[in-house]
Formats: sequence, C-alpha cells, structure tokens
Amino acid sequence: MTTHYPLSEIPPDIVCADDYERHAREALPHSTYEHIASGSGDEITLRGNRDAFQQVQILPRMLRRFDRASAQLSLFGDRYASPMVVAPLAYQQLAHPEGELATAAAADALDCGFVCSTLASCSLERVASAGRSPKWFQLYFQASRANTLALVRRAEQAGYRAIVVTVDSSVTGIRNRSQRAGFALPDNVQAANLRELAPPPPRPLKQDESIILNGIMADAPDWDELAWLRSQTALPLIVKGIIHPEDARQALLLGADGLVVSNHGGRSLDGCPASLRMLPLIRRTVDAFAASHPHRTAATVLLDSGIRRGSDVFKALALGADAVLLGRPCFYALSVAGALGVAHLLRTLKEEFELTLALSGCQTPADISRDAVIIPRDFSPDIPGCETNHATDH
Amino acid sequence: MTTHYPLSEIPPDIVCADDYERHAREALPHSTYEHIASGSGDEITLRGNRDAFQQVQILPRMLRRFDRASAQLSLFGDRYASPMVVAPLAYQQLAHPEGELATAAAADALDCGFVCSTLASCSLERVASAGRSPKWFQLYFQASRANTLALVRRAEQAGYRAIVVTVDSSVTGIRNRSQRAGFALPDNVQAANLRELAPPPPRPLKQDESIILNGIMADAPDWDELAWLRSQTALPLIVKGIIHPEDARQALLLGADGLVVSNHGGRSLDGCPASLRMLPLIRRTVDAFAASHPHRTAATVLLDSGIRRGSDVFKALALGADAVLLGRPCFYALSVAGALGVAHLLRTLKEEFELTLALSGCQTPADISRDAVIIPRDFSPDIPGCETNHATDH
Amino acid sequence: MTTHYPLSEIPPDIVCADDYERHAREALPHSTYEHIASGSGDEITLRGNRDAFQQVQILPRMLRRFDRASAQLSLFGDRYASPMVVAPLAYQQLAHPEGELATAAAADALDCGFVCSTLASCSLERVASAGRSPKWFQLYFQASRANTLALVRRAEQAGYRAIVVTVDSSVTGIRNRSQRAGFALPDNVQAANLRELAPPPPRPLKQDESIILNGIMADAPDWDELAWLRSQTALPLIVKGIIHPEDARQALLLGADGLVVSNHGGRSLDGCPASLRMLPLIRRTVDAFAASHPHRTAATVLLDSGIRRGSDVFKALALGADAVLLGRPCFYALSVAGALGVAHLLRTLKEEFELTLALSGCQTPADISRDAVIIPRDFSPDIPGCETNHATDH
Amino acid sequence: MTTHYPLSEIPPDIVCADDYERHAREALPHSTYEHIASGSGDEITLRGNRDAFQQVQILPRMLRRFDRASAQLSLFGDRYASPMVVAPLAYQQLAHPEGELATAAAADALDCGFVCSTLASCSLERVASAGRSPKWFQLYFQASRANTLALVRRAEQAGYRAIVVTVDSSVTGIRNRSQRAGFALPDNVQAANLRELAPPPPRPLKQDESIILNGIMADAPDWDELAWLRSQTALPLIVKGIIHPEDARQALLLGADGLVVSNHGGRSLDGCPASLRMLPLIRRTVDAFAASHPHRTAATVLLDSGIRRGSDVFKALALGADAVLLGRPCFYALSVAGALGVAHLLRTLKEEFELTLALSGCQTPADISRDAVIIPRDFSPDIPGCETNHATDH
Repeated sequence: MTTHYPLSEIPPDIVCADDYERHAREALPHSTYEHIASGSGDEITLRGNRDAFQQVQILPRMLRRFDRASAQLSLFGDRYASPMVVAPLAYQQLAHPEGELATAAAADALDCGFVCSTLASCSLERVASAGRSPKWFQLYFQASRANTLALVRRAEQAGYRAIVVTVDSSVTGIRNRSQRAGFALPDNVQAANLRELAPPPPRPLKQDESIILNGIMADAPDWDELAWLRSQTALPLIVKGIIHPEDARQALLLGADGLVVSNHGGRSLDGCPASLRMLPLIRRTVDAFAASHPHRTAATVLLDSGIRRGSDVFKALALGADAVLLGRPCFYALSVAGALGVAHLLRTLKEEFELTLALSGCQTPADISRDAVIIPRDFSPDIPGCETNHATDH
Repeated sequence: MTTHYPLSEIPPDIVCADDYERHAREALPHSTYEHIASGSGDEITLRGNRDAFQQVQILPRMLRRFDRASAQLSLFGDRYASPMVVAPLAYQQLAHPEGELATAAAADALDCGFVCSTLASCSLERVASAGRSPKWFQLYFQASRANTLALVRRAEQAGYRAIVVTVDSSVTGIRNRSQRAGFALPDNVQAANLRELAPPPPRPLKQDESIILNGIMADAPDWDELAWLRSQTALPLIVKGIIHPEDARQALLLGADGLVVSNHGGRSLDGCPASLRMLPLIRRTVDAFAASHPHRTAATVLLDSGIRRGSDVFKALALGADAVLLGRPCFYALSVAGALGVAHLLRTLKEEFELTLALSGCQTPADISRDAVIIPRDFSPDIPGCETNHATDH
Repeated sequence: MTTHYPLSEIPPDIVCADDYERHAREALPHSTYEHIASGSGDEITLRGNRDAFQQVQILPRMLRRFDRASAQLSLFGDRYASPMVVAPLAYQQLAHPEGELATAAAADALDCGFVCSTLASCSLERVASAGRSPKWFQLYFQASRANTLALVRRAEQAGYRAIVVTVDSSVTGIRNRSQRAGFALPDNVQAANLRELAPPPPRPLKQDESIILNGIMADAPDWDELAWLRSQTALPLIVKGIIHPEDARQALLLGADGLVVSNHGGRSLDGCPASLRMLPLIRRTVDAFAASHPHRTAATVLLDSGIRRGSDVFKALALGADAVLLGRPCFYALSVAGALGVAHLLRTLKEEFELTLALSGCQTPADISRDAVIIPRDFSPDIPGCETNHATDH
Repeated sequence: MTTHYPLSEIPPDIVCADDYERHAREALPHSTYEHIASGSGDEITLRGNRDAFQQVQILPRMLRRFDRASAQLSLFGDRYASPMVVAPLAYQQLAHPEGELATAAAADALDCGFVCSTLASCSLERVASAGRSPKWFQLYFQASRANTLALVRRAEQAGYRAIVVTVDSSVTGIRNRSQRAGFALPDNVQAANLRELAPPPPRPLKQDESIILNGIMADAPDWDELAWLRSQTALPLIVKGIIHPEDARQALLLGADGLVVSNHGGRSLDGCPASLRMLPLIRRTVDAFAASHPHRTAATVLLDSGIRRGSDVFKALALGADAVLLGRPCFYALSVAGALGVAHLLRTLKEEFELTLALSGCQTPADISRDAVIIPRDFSPDIPGCETNHATDH
C-alpha cells in the first residue's frame, strides 16, 4: 500500500464533487479506491442511481421574488444549513488518519448534519465530541440484543440526536471489483465501536445447509427486532435501506420516525432500482400513513445513493425527500484533503443547491414542489397495491 | 494566452457549423474555448439541446410546385433573408479583435438579424453603425433602474429596432469547465456599454444569510421590473429565457411583443429541459393568448439553444418558432476567420435551410407546418394546466 | 487518386456485406469512399436506416413442414431468384473499370434483378446487353421533356422491363464528408447516357432570388410531370423516393405500377425517417388503394435504404415490401473484386435470406406475414389521416 | 492451434462468470474462442439476451424471517442444489482434454444438473458414469428415425433421466466471426455418439432448387417427428428452443413434459427476441394449458441464453422459469481450469443466487414471485392471441 499524504490546500481544478473522485483515484491505494468506488455485481444499480438523477429535469420559473430566501431546514428539531447530511461511512481512516473526526469537524463547520457509523474507525464518543453540531448514530443490529443495546446506550450517552438503523445489509453484497483488487482492511484500521463486544458463538450447520441462507441469515434481524429496538430508546428512530413501499409502511407501523430510501449506494443488491425512482412511492406511502395517523408526527423521508450535485438535492426534494445523505463524495474529499477537503466539498454542494434554488425560482426547500421538475413517464415502477406514479399524474 | 491570428480565407474542410467549432478549438486560447463551449454543471442541458433536434424527423413531400419559393420573412416590420438571427453573445473581442463589429458586418452582408449584447466588448453605438440592416439590443437589468433606463435610451437613440431582455440569468450558472481552465476576462476585453455606469453599493448580509440567496438574488429583477420596463419604451419588447408556459403567459400579460424560448445555451440551470421540447407548449400558450386578445398583435416566438444546421431551423419552425437565434457557431466562425468566417457560416446555414425547404416540399417558412415533422411521443413534458403535446395530438 | 486493382478472388475474411465495406475502404481512393459511404448532413438518416432494421425482431416458429420451399418470386411478370434487386447506382466506373457491365453480369449470373441508372458510366444500351436477365431503367427527369423522353425511348428500345423514376432528389443533399474529402468526378468517368443531351439554357435570377429555391427548384419536376411521363410509356412505371403515404396515394392515382419507399440511402434529406419505418404506412395505403380500385393491378412495393443482411430482406417483407433494392453493398463488392465480388455478395445475401426463411419456419416470401416479426411500439409515426401502426395493431 | 494448459488453481482475479470469459480468451486458440463466444449474424440476439436481464430489476424486501431457507429444488423427481443446470454444450474437448467428463464431474460435485449433448466429444455412456448425480440427454433428430431411436435407447440404457430434444437448429445459423477466424473442428475432437451411425444418402436437387431450402430443410424434423419421438420413450421429454407461445402449446399438446425457452444462446436466428422476454408469455401458456388439462402433470419451464449471474437466475424464476440452463460460462471455466474451474464457477453462481435470495427477502426459489421484480413496460411483445404482458398487468 502506498503512503497517502492529504493535501493542505484545494487544487484549483477541484470545483465539484466528481473532481474529488478523480483526485481520490490518485490519492488512495488502488484496492481502497476500488473498494469504495465500486458497487455490487455488475454495478447496474450503481449506474442506475446516477442515471435516475440525470433523467429528472428541472422546470425553472423566472422573475420570482426572493425576499425570504434560505436553504436552511429543521430535522428532528435541529436546524441545519441545507438539506444535506453526511452519510454513515464505515472506516474513514481508510481515507485519512483523522478519519471520522475530520469529517465531523468539517460538517460542524458548515452546519451540516453528520451520521456516525457503527463501523467507524474512531469511537462514537470521540466523534461526538468533534464540534457542537447535532449528530446521528448509525446502528447495525449485532448478533445479540445485549450488544445492540450497548451501542444504543453509548450513542444516547454521547449525545447523538437520532438512531439510524440499517436494514438492507444482512449479508454483504457481491463486491467483485473489491475482490479483484485484493482489498482487505489494514491492521491499523478497525471498527472502534465493536472492539469490546464479544462475537457470537459460531452456529453449526447441518449437511446441505448453506452458510449464507442458514448460517448468516439465521442471525439476521427481522421486523420483531425492529419493534424491540423501538421499545428500547426514546431517540428518533430512522430506518435506512427502505426500497419497497410496503416495508416503509411496516416500519412506520412499528414506530419509525424517519426512513432513508436507499440501496446502499449500489453496494448491496445489484439489480435493485435506483432509490430516486422509489422515492415518490415511499413519499406517497408516508403521506397516506400520516393522513390516517393524525396524532403521530409525520415521518421524515431521506434519500441516499447517487447525490453528486446541488441540483440532485433539488431533484430529490421535488420527488419527496425532506433531505439527502451524502456518501462517497465525502470519503473522496477526505482522502484528498482531509477536513479541509470535506468542508470545501460541503460548501460547494451547498452553493450549487442555492444556485439551483435561485435559477429555478424557489426561495426555500419547502418551495420545491413536484411541479418544479419533469419526471419521465415510467420513471417509477407500478407496484401492485401502491398508487401509480406517472408523469401525467399530478 | 496565445496570440490568435484569424484566417483570411476559409479552409476547404470547413463546410458546416460544426467544422467551425473544430477549428475554433485550435484557434482560441484553451481557457476561452472552454468558457464558450462548455455548459453549466454536468452539461446535461447542453447535450439535451442537441439531442432534442436529432429526435425530430422531417417528413418530406415530393413533386410539389416551387413557383413562389423564398426563405425570407418579416420580424417586427423588418425583412430578413431567412428566419435566422445572430444571438446576443457577450465579449466578442474574446474571439477576434474586431469583435461585435465584425459579426454585425457579416450579418449585414447576409441580410441577417443581429442582437447586440449588454455585455458587448464594443459600444452599442459603434455596433449600431456596422451596416444598415436592422438590429436589436439585448438588455440585462442593472442593479438600479436608472442604469437600466440609461441603456434602453442609448439603444433607442442608436436605432435599435427592439429590446431583448434576458430573464434567465439572475445568477451565473455553474461553469466548471470554465473554472477548471482558469478562464478570466483579459484586461483588454471589457463590457464597453457598462463603463460609465456606477456599480450598486454593496448590500450587507446578516449572519447565516447566503451571498447567493440573500445577496445577489435580492437585487434580481422580478415581474414588477418587467412591467416597469414595458412602460419605459415603445420599442418591441422581447423576453428571452422563457421555459415555462406560465411564464410565457405572464410575459404576454405584461405586454411582451416576443419571447425567446431559451435555456441560455445550456449555460444557466443545468437540468433544464431542451428549449426545443418546451417550444410547442409555449407556442400553444402564445396562440391561446392571441385568440383571447384579438386586439393585440400576435407575439413573435423565437427559439434559442442548439441550432447547428439549416434543418434545425426547419424543425424549430415546425414546432412553433417564427425564427431562431444562432449563438456559439457565430463565435466560433468569428474566432476562425473574422467577419469573413461569420458571413460564410451564415451563408452556409441559409443554403442548408433552403435545401431543407426544397427537399421537404415547402416553398416558404410559412409552409412549414407541424405535419412536416415527426415528433416522438413524450418529446414535450406534460405540464399541469397546459394542454398535452403528444405525437398523436394533431 | 490511387490506382485500384480489383481482386480476382474473394479473401476468406469476407463473409458478409459489411466485410465488403471494410475492404472497400482500403480498395477505393479516400474521396470516392467518403462520397459513397457518407450520408447527407449529420447522417442521422443514414444511421436511422440501419437502426430501424435492428429494432425489428423475428419471431421464429419451429418444426414446420418444408415441402414447397423457395425464395423465388415474380415482379412485373418476370421471375427472380429472390426478393432482391440491385439498386440504381450512379457512376459505377468509380468502383471498377467495367462499372455497370460487371455488376449487371453478376446480377445476371444470380438471376437477380438489376436497375440501370440514368447516371450510369456505361451507356444503357451496353448495360442492357450484359446478360439476359430482365433489367429496369432508372430515370431522372431532365430539364426538358424532350430529353426525358429521349431516355425513355432508348430504354424501351434496349429492352428494359420497367421505368424507375426517382422523385426525391430535385436538389442534391448536403454531402459534407464528400466535400471535406474533396471528391470530384474524375475525367474518365462520365454520365454516358447524357453525353448527347443538350443542357438547358441558364435561368436568370432576379435580385434576392435564391439559386436553390428559384434557380434549381424552378426546373424541378412536379406531379404534372409524373402524369405526363405516365402517358408516354407503356412500361411499368415505378416511383422511387416515396416517404409520405399521401405521396404514395398520389402516385397511384396518376398510374404508378410500383413504389420504392426510400430516402435515397440517407443521401438526400438528413432527418428524414428510416424508410423501413414508413413502409407499413405505405403498404396500408397501397392495400387501401387496391381495395378501392379492383380493376387496377395491385401496385408493387419495394424498399430501399439500409439492407445489409438476408434477415433485413425478411424484415422488409414482413413490414410490407414485395422486394428490396440493394445499393451500397454492390458498389463495395464491385470495388473489391469486380463482377466476382458482386456475384459473391448476391449469393451470400440470398443464402442468408434462405437461412432466415428456414430458421423462422417460412417456406416462401409469401409466407412472411406481419406476425413473423415483433415491431416496437411507436416504430412507425402516427400520421394524420393515415391509420396508426402500433405493435398492438394486428 | 496453440497448445492449451488448463490451470490447476483458480487465479484470485476470477471472482465471477465473466472473469472466466476474460481468461478463456487467452487460454483458448483464437478460432475456438471466436467460435464459442460469437453469436449468429450481427449478434443482435446475443447482445439482446444480456440486455434483457439488465432491464429487469429486483425489488428487495427487508427484515423478513429466514427460518426455512434453501436454494434447492426438484426437477422431474430429482433434487438439485439450486435451479441451475449445465446446458448441453457440443464438443467440450475443444476446451479441455477431459471434455464432458470434467464438466459432469464438477456438476456432480456441486449437486448440479447436467445435460449431455448429442454432439458430445465423449460418448454418452462415459459421461453417464461421471458421478452419480442425475443427468439428461440432449437429442438432435437424426436424418433417419432409426438413428434417432438408437440414440434414445442408448440414453435410456445409460440411465439418463430425461430427453432434451432441440428443435431450433434445423440449419446452422450464420456464424461470421467463426468463419472469419477460420474455425474448423480439429481431427482429435469428434461427435463420439455419432461415430457408428450411417449418414443419410445425399438427396439430389433439381435445377433452381436451393441446398438450404430444398436440401437440408427437406430432412428437417416437423411436429410429426416430435409426436413419434414422444411415442418412443417413457422418459420425461423436454423440448428445447421454444420461442413462440403457440409452439409451446403445440409441444404440450403432443405430450412434452418440459420446455426450454431458448434462442440457442444467440447462435441460431439472429434477430430472434431474447428468451427472457418470451418467458412470461410461455409461462402463461403453460399455466393455461395446465389449468385446462388437470390430469397432466404441469410442465416444467426452463430458460436458456444469457445467464451470467446468480441474480439472473433469480430474475428468470421471477418471470416464470422453474430453472435455468447455463451454457458458455461452463465452457469458459472448463477451458481455464478444467473440472476445478467448472466447480468453482458453479459454486460462485450458487452463492450469488443465495445472496440474491437473502438480500431480496426470499427464503426459497418458490418464494420468488412476479412481484419480486420490476419489468419495464413493453419488455415482452404483444402477440396476437396471447394475453398481454405489461408491467401494469398484475
């Protein structure tokens, strides 16, 4: 592995998120770059995420008044500079020695939300202390409830403002590019939060049983686990990895306060639809649920997977998201120039989002209605039992 | 910056507009070429403009009579050789020392319309004197009404025949290619028309306010400004940068005499639909307005963004334009061979347009009906409140 | 121009029509290759012709009986080996010193139809004597009726079996690749049939008149000329270059015995739809005309532009053609290996067509019904006044 | 031909089926690779097979219970590890000296089904003895019933559990890449099963008769031959090469127990639709037949052509297949690393399939319903007389 020296200033040819990817390809060891950049399988979903954004168009209005304009918004009672939150990225010391601490500091400097991963390479307590802006903790269910609960309690203690529980990764997806590049976690990068948790005892398999279907999946969480988790914490509970509207509804029924429509950045099930395409269906499900549960606070909808531009944030909001999570670009910026890089990236994206508001004639995120975009016919699938989502359907 | 010597004759391998772009890439300094050729953001709209033209097909009729054939047409009472007008391009001295004077002379030689930009590098008075063919003046609203009015009065005095007010550029779009190439206006190229106008005082921002949303946009014009402008001049008023049919209707209500359906050549909001796709909706809006306002002269519809061939002009007319504006190709031709290059370009495009008339069986621009083209289903979006525009809808 | 030595045997790597194009690119002078291979304008129509064939799929039936199988068919009373006819290609001495004589001899050897061009580089009389298989004469209207009639009379005398009058080329299309390559007809290649015809006197143009619209097009033929031509010959009259169903109907009303649905191989109006896409509409028009004119012999429908495979012939027949014309591939084969090359090409395509019959379960050309193919929705345009042509419409 | 040394271990950069193709390109003589890898004609169908899989998306469900999970299934009374069967591939000694014996041994090791080809390079009896897992015999109709029957009887004797009769290859498709590469069967590779069968006497052709249509096709089987074959054996009879639903129905009427929806891997009729696109129509036909013939065992539907991933197996099952045949990848793995390679390939694909089950929330193949996937509108064609298959049709 080559040694990596992060830059201490931003090269003038870095002017957007994709430029960070280009530079990160040079800055990172090949196997790390491949591990991060790749999607699962044939990367159909990875490409699909980007393609979906490119197919949505923005319909600008001219000469509108801008006398109350602002990109800010509130999520779970906290105020943020824009509808962008840094996604939970595992093992950020792969990118930079300061890892999550640098990223969190940058988010803090920009008043941007930040989600700390269960698989952070710095402990959740240290990350919590990086800046004063509100943070959320991402939770992977552990093999034992005791271990899961230990993580939740630590997050509560450390002052995290919400739990983001990931449900789309019971098993790891097919990561062929990572495999071909021979990626392995280096010894000095570890899951700091899990160091003291005892691993579960191995489960013996009968003949003809499958390691995947009868080994790993036997330990995978189900809806009962989510109900249990809901009963264990008073923090807002956000379920990450929802693609099907029925799963959205089930999560809400069990008490979820928020959903992240996500396909794990194309890293889990290859062939899964772009999360942006599922978003309008999930939004409709959430709205229908809210209408029939007037005493519940309406759930928050976040969108993950494929955001590379401020205009992508705009499109996600027009299709039903309240805010978006920003993943790989933060990792790339971190690897190129540490906290400075992440801060520059976040500022650039915020400015792009503000320019999109200005040029489209929207003063605030709340002004971004469905009518502000053009969605191709058949952009979202027809799902039995869910209402249709055609371009003609306004 | 390398010195640029425009050619004094046209190389034999330049036989169409795209050939000028190819040569201009060599003739221009890299950063200037990048600045001109690029679109905003990921250039989705830039590519979309070209793609839209390629998707429209022409349905030729054979053996028709040609006994009254002509490509000429009238706009606002003036007669032109064809439905092509040179678009308002800023800072043409970037391309050639003679700048707008050379371009205007070429347009004059071909009886082609010409629009002088607020940001011309030669003063509007000098441009007005380049040839006798009628010209229009493009107006950017200035930060003060006094400054705006000063420009309008100078244009009236200099004999311009119409005001083309641009409304789609309150802020500058994201120009990443230009930024990466390090483009900056050279010292010897300036906005000649603005030299004596006092800049507005800086507006102080509160904490948490955005330079874009609360700084620049607070000075941006709104519909009230357009109404004011309408009241200040008797010249035909053309509103440039209309994409949404509702904005078209609003401009007409406020007294606009013409509209330019345009996305600023893909340089303003990336993700904006191709102007050609919006054209049929705007045309319908203009026709409906004319039908309900029989005492007003019917407004003129121009189309901007993506014209590279005489057949593109034909397609734009079939979809509802009265004429088109021609932008980047003129800049390229100017940079390659000065006035001679622009004249050659305009002649080539006019001949292409005439060949398209001849081969399609249309004697005049007025003969180009909607039935002369095939428009793919879903070419134009469905917009709530606007009538649909399907291929089956005749 | 480099000297060209045609091969005397077929290289083993030539196994299909496209292989001849690949070899011809080497065998021909660059400017000649560019002139022949290119389409007009941006070659949208050239590509569209090929694309259309690729979008039609063949639905094979298995285990059918083959006890009366044959690829042969009759056209205007003559029997041919398959539904393929060599198209009228101008100036074949550009490809080979023996020009049309070699091509005609090859067609004769394969019992394949052959059309001699007005612009043949060998006289129509010499071509007529090359082999005994029936041939047709392609006619361009001349500037004077006397000259046109002289050509018709010579064709009748020489024993041609039909007149194919081309109506889609009143002016030459935009041939940029040919222009850039500097193509010009060499001195030793001439339009042999026109040598003794007096050119028309030049037509003076008024000021502001266009050479194209008021010069060339003033001499262009119209429907009256077609009616006159019909009255002058008893030979079957085939009108070549029909794209619009209304023009098909008009030609039939004036007495045409056949139509060639063609866009001149993408060399005339760029942006014209693929002829294959218009074919079903033309076939419907021809059938409707035949139904309402029971005393007329039903007109023959030919298809031109884009045939490169035996399966393309199959697809054209399924969409309504009685037979197809084969253009550029013959020119390429002629340039690579003279008469031998053309014969090899025609045999290869005939075998491909026979294999397609065999594998699809069709015994004869007449067995190829619309149900034998899958046509994408929106493959053909909706034309006002013509019935629709959707995939669902059976 | 270069000598080929199969690997004795799997290189670490082989992690999926496509990696075997990449390595096989190096391992195999060029002409053999071209012969195997290529499709017929312009390879439209070859590409179409892959494209069809990429267009189907999987809609995952989260947090489902996995307490009875298994990838196993039964076919014709035998139990297999997963719904994957090794397809009948001719002449496997082209890939490896041990040929079919190595492939069969690998299938046996993985409890995977295996089909021995009529054109195997090892005798069907030797193949039958390679491992104890159940195998099927693929039958090509021979020119005489006696020869066909001899093969059936030998297969019965050798213990094959089903007859797979291929009906889509009466003539060989157009194999241009194979021709250009000069592929010919080497002397040491032969159709071992046919060595002792007397070839049919040559059939004399009349003048004007075609070798293809009147020679080869006169010997081709028809439905009467299938009825005869059905009457000759009590083994399950599977008809391979069905594309049209009407042919599926006809095969069922004549007593077929199973169907393979296949276009011969794009090697027979180029232009044939992807087998995956026809699958839903065939499944519907089979279900309708089963509903109207309650006393018959419901027929088994297999899918062939284009499987490269475990997720492809999942998609095929969701669209109506009971299991899939796996062709070229086995040949590539055999050529790269013999039995070891095939075993590794089969294990990799089985794990991919299990991961897809796990990530999509399906415990077993039977859980994979139509609702687990998103099928684009117009994915399958409308066929007159068959019910439609739109995405909206649930």
